[in-house]
Amino acid sequence: MVTIECVPNVSEGRRADVINGLADSLRSVPGLRVLGVQSDGAHNRSVFTLAGDAAALAAGVPKLFEGALAAIDLRTHTGEHPRIGAIDVVPFIPIEGVTMAECVALAKAVAADVAARFAVPMFLYEEASANPARQNLEDIRRGEFEGLAAKMAQPAWAPDYGPASPHPSAGATAIGARMPLIAYNINLATNRLDVAKKIASAIRISSGGLRYVKAMGIALEDRGIVQVSINLTNYEKTPMFRVFDLVKREAARYGVDVLESEIVGFVPAAALTQTAEYFLQLEGFSPDQVLEVKLRT
Amino acid sequence: MVTIECVPNVSEGRRADVINGLADSLRSVPGLRVLGVQSDGAHNRSVFTLAGDAAALAAGVPKLFEGALAAIDLRTHTGEHPRIGAIDVVPFIPIEGVTMAECVALAKAVAADVAARFAVPMFLYEEASANPARQNLEDIRRGEFEGLAAKMAQPAWAPDYGPASPHPSAGATAIGARMPLIAYNINLATNRLDVAKKIASAIRISSGGLRYVKAMGIALEDRGIVQVSINLTNYEKTPMFRVFDLVKREAARYGVDVLESEIVGFVPAAALTQTAEYFLQLEGFSPDQVLEVKLRT
Repeated sequence: MVTIECVPNVSEGRRADVINGLADSLRSVPGLRVLGVQSDGAHNRSVFTLAGDAAALAAGVPKLFEGALAAIDLRTHTGEHPRIGAIDVVPFIPIEGVTMAECVALAKAVAADVAARFAVPMFLYEEASANPARQNLEDIRRGEFEGLAAKMAQPAWAPDYGPASPHPSAGATAIGARMPLIAYNINLATNRLDVAKKIASAIRISSGGLRYVKAMGIALEDRGIVQVSINLTNYEKTPMFRVFDLVKREAARYGVDVLESEIVGFVPAAALTQTAEYFLQLEGFSPDQVLEVKLRT
Repeated sequence: MVTIECVPNVSEGRRADVINGLADSLRSVPGLRVLGVQSDGAHNRSVFTLAGDAAALAAGVPKLFEGALAAIDLRTHTGEHPRIGAIDVVPFIPIEGVTMAECVALAKAVAADVAARFAVPMFLYEEASANPARQNLEDIRRGEFEGLAAKMAQPAWAPDYGPASPHPSAGATAIGARMPLIAYNINLATNRLDVAKKIASAIRISSGGLRYVKAMGIALEDRGIVQVSINLTNYEKTPMFRVFDLVKREAARYGVDVLESEIVGFVPAAALTQTAEYFLQLEGFSPDQVLEVKLRT
């Protein structure tokens, strides 16, 4: 069984009729599942969580463009979240029975199709881009919709597919493939915010830490404790157990214990399996030994 | 999705035509999957690993009785493994979307059906038996087929279903429900067999250890190391991480390190998830947060 997750971010978080209409059009696609729709009014943005095989997603994503282009005009759009397009970003995420290379191929095929049908410029990002300056979503989105025409006038910002200048009302879209993200928080048995901030700084890539860790230290005021709040963007290459062990060791330096950790939202089974393998010192273990995996093959 | 595993042990491990015939009759049952057939000539016994929902197993197990009764006669059967019946033991094991109580109910329904159709006495065991003297399979099997008529003449050994005396050629069957068994070995960085034996003795229930652990110390001659070889009969109540930690601690007492551990055969995903939860000190975690679990519901 092939399962690919797709999490399009759409620049509409306020008009329920538009958001519901987009969700309904996705639900009508055979084999496509709508696992969730989260809308944020302040961000004026909705996140659709979809799952299916390549064919279902290749059929569903253009439907989303069709509906969003008819309903959203970025020339009058306001919201706190940065965006370049009516459909701002479309990541494909390998979950089961599918490789990252296949998700990259799907991203490129959908990008070419959408660009041709809707005249929206498409920028490949993350694993789908071979250009280091284009892999990071923040780099593509810098300047936002309002600065997009000037940005695309530079040769370095020609799109990967579609017209050379922005779609008048829908801007452009970043489309690509990435690993599932794990939102992972580690709570410390202390109220010392400086300790959480120092640990976050020690473990995140932006200040010299682990490659696939974003982290910040925050206070949980109501509980009188602090938290190292982490986004883990590639659990295969930067595993949860390594992050946990490193936080624990850094905390010990300040005489602080780890109180508990928590996973917010979903986690791939493989991230938990690799954690059990590590701590149990398992040798020669294969995912095929997981009974549920065997039963599904 | 409901998945129940069923692992009938049949007293025939030598005649390939008989074993293949039984497997083929099981494969013909709609919704029933034959995951594996392991035969042992010395034991003269075959283990069928089946999976399906309650309806598929309720249809399949009687087919196995029909075929085995026609082909196997315990009056002329020899083999190293103790047995009381042509179909010796039939355990039902909850895997996914099903409770132990439902597996107990299934065991009782199949037992009643088989007893009525084939006149084979059925003994409930493990979770399916309310009688402590009948829960342990070894207690039911003591005396084997050859001693069964005398044993069943005692009031304490009246069967739960079926005739009061053994089937002439097929004896009786133990049928019940149990947790999945995990074959889990921990290798020590030493060649001292006495250390492996002392640790096995410390952790197993039979000498005062953990409730759901069977263990022995053995030498891995070719590698020059020793192993604590473990059967974990209920990973929910005696989790893998606790066994691992206890072995590690006991080994340290003798100045010995754990080299590695290994899982032989299958392991339920939940056993690995609970291990990750323990070592990561995860709080408030629900199995529904595992992406693959969410995708299957």
